[in-house]
Amino acid sequence: MITISAFNNVPDFAKGLVRDMRVRWALEEAGLPYATRLLEQGDQDKPDYRALQPFGQVPIFEEDGLVLFESGAIVLHVGERSEALLPRDPVARGRAVQWLIAALNSIEPAVWNLFLIDFIFANEEWAKLRRPGAVEFMNRRLDALAKRLGNKPFLDGERFTAGDLMMASVLGFHADTRKRDPRLAAYIDRCTVRPAYKRALDAQLGDFRMAA
Amino acid sequence: MITISAFNNVPDFAKGLVRDMRVRWALEEAGLPYATRLLEQGDQDKPDYRALQPFGQVPIFEEDGLVLFESGAIVLHVGERSEALLPRDPVARGRAVQWLIAALNSIEPAVWNLFLIDFIFANEEWAKLRRPGAVEFMNRRLDALAKRLGNKPFLDGERFTAGDLMMASVLGFHADTRKRDPRLAAYIDRCTVRPAYKRALDAQLGDFRMAA
Repeated sequence: MITISAFNNVPDFAKGLVRDMRVRWALEEAGLPYATRLLEQGDQDKPDYRALQPFGQVPIFEEDGLVLFESGAIVLHVGERSEALLPRDPVARGRAVQWLIAALNSIEPAVWNLFLIDFIFANEEWAKLRRPGAVEFMNRRLDALAKRLGNKPFLDGERFTAGDLMMASVLGFHADTRKRDPRLAAYIDRCTVRPAYKRALDAQLGDFRMAA
Repeated sequence: MITISAFNNVPDFAKGLVRDMRVRWALEEAGLPYATRLLEQGDQDKPDYRALQPFGQVPIFEEDGLVLFESGAIVLHVGERSEALLPRDPVARGRAVQWLIAALNSIEPAVWNLFLIDFIFANEEWAKLRRPGAVEFMNRRLDALAKRLGNKPFLDGERFTAGDLMMASVLGFHADTRKRDPRLAAYIDRCTVRPAYKRALDAQLGDFRMAA
């Protein structure tokens, strides 16, 4: 049985955004059942969790003695079992991985930076001074992404992959991403209307309610 | 024949750090020959390059009509052909991918942030105000990484993988990473003393000299 870690509660602004969502979504796309190991705030810094996840993040993925961390790596690992996430054809697969990494390394840092500025450090002087440059940098990346997406339904064409799962997830970190370009708004909607996304979101929110 | 893109020159502080280094290093570890497509500054924003790389970054990887971008995705693609980068065993392979993603998504943003503060925006007021918090955040990540590495030669034990290639690469973005913990300094040295790294570095610097 697959078990993933998640928090039993988070502040409202983080609901639906905690990184176990990506793994829940991937597992739902792949049709793989899973259990959750719920952490209270603070548990992530205790030695037994840090022994599994050095940075104290969620999620970890556990199955038959294998422990993996980093949501991107877990989604790729789950993708090995499901063509719904990673095509078998090596070329199409390479491009799906490309978009997953682009989401994590070229888009997420730009969006996350604005998330930090607006939701974590909003009252700090540096955040106020940095905000215009951070917005400009994020928008340049979003414009390039929207242009490349064009009017295709998904990043590589007709077919949803793990790359779209990760891209829609990281765009979700800040509502301004969907305001930048109607093509990005439609793309996020196209990804998150999927039944697997809905089930994943219900499961994350359900775990929060259980603990409340 | 494999072709990768790279710049024909960059400022001194970026020499050895431009992201084509990671791909050159992976190709050298895998023993795969390659050619370079050298860009002058500005070429990365021209329509023909942006059609291949939407964000205007280097490197791209081209082979037999396949075009891939994102250094992390290219290293994984090259790793499919070489056990020197990705073990065949699915569990060991999952952990190698985990460390590659940890490098790109949990360590690089912290180190890159300090790189920007110290080398790109050093004279900006926000950078001065932000620096202590950025250092503290980076150091927390580095401490967790050093603790997890412990006295093992590589992140997953005795064997170098694509995860180490990427981790040593991202740690190289700021010299303070090696000053934080002697285990990290020894680890970076252990990775970059490899003949494949040396050949990759010589090739990147050689391309700069050719253009000069």
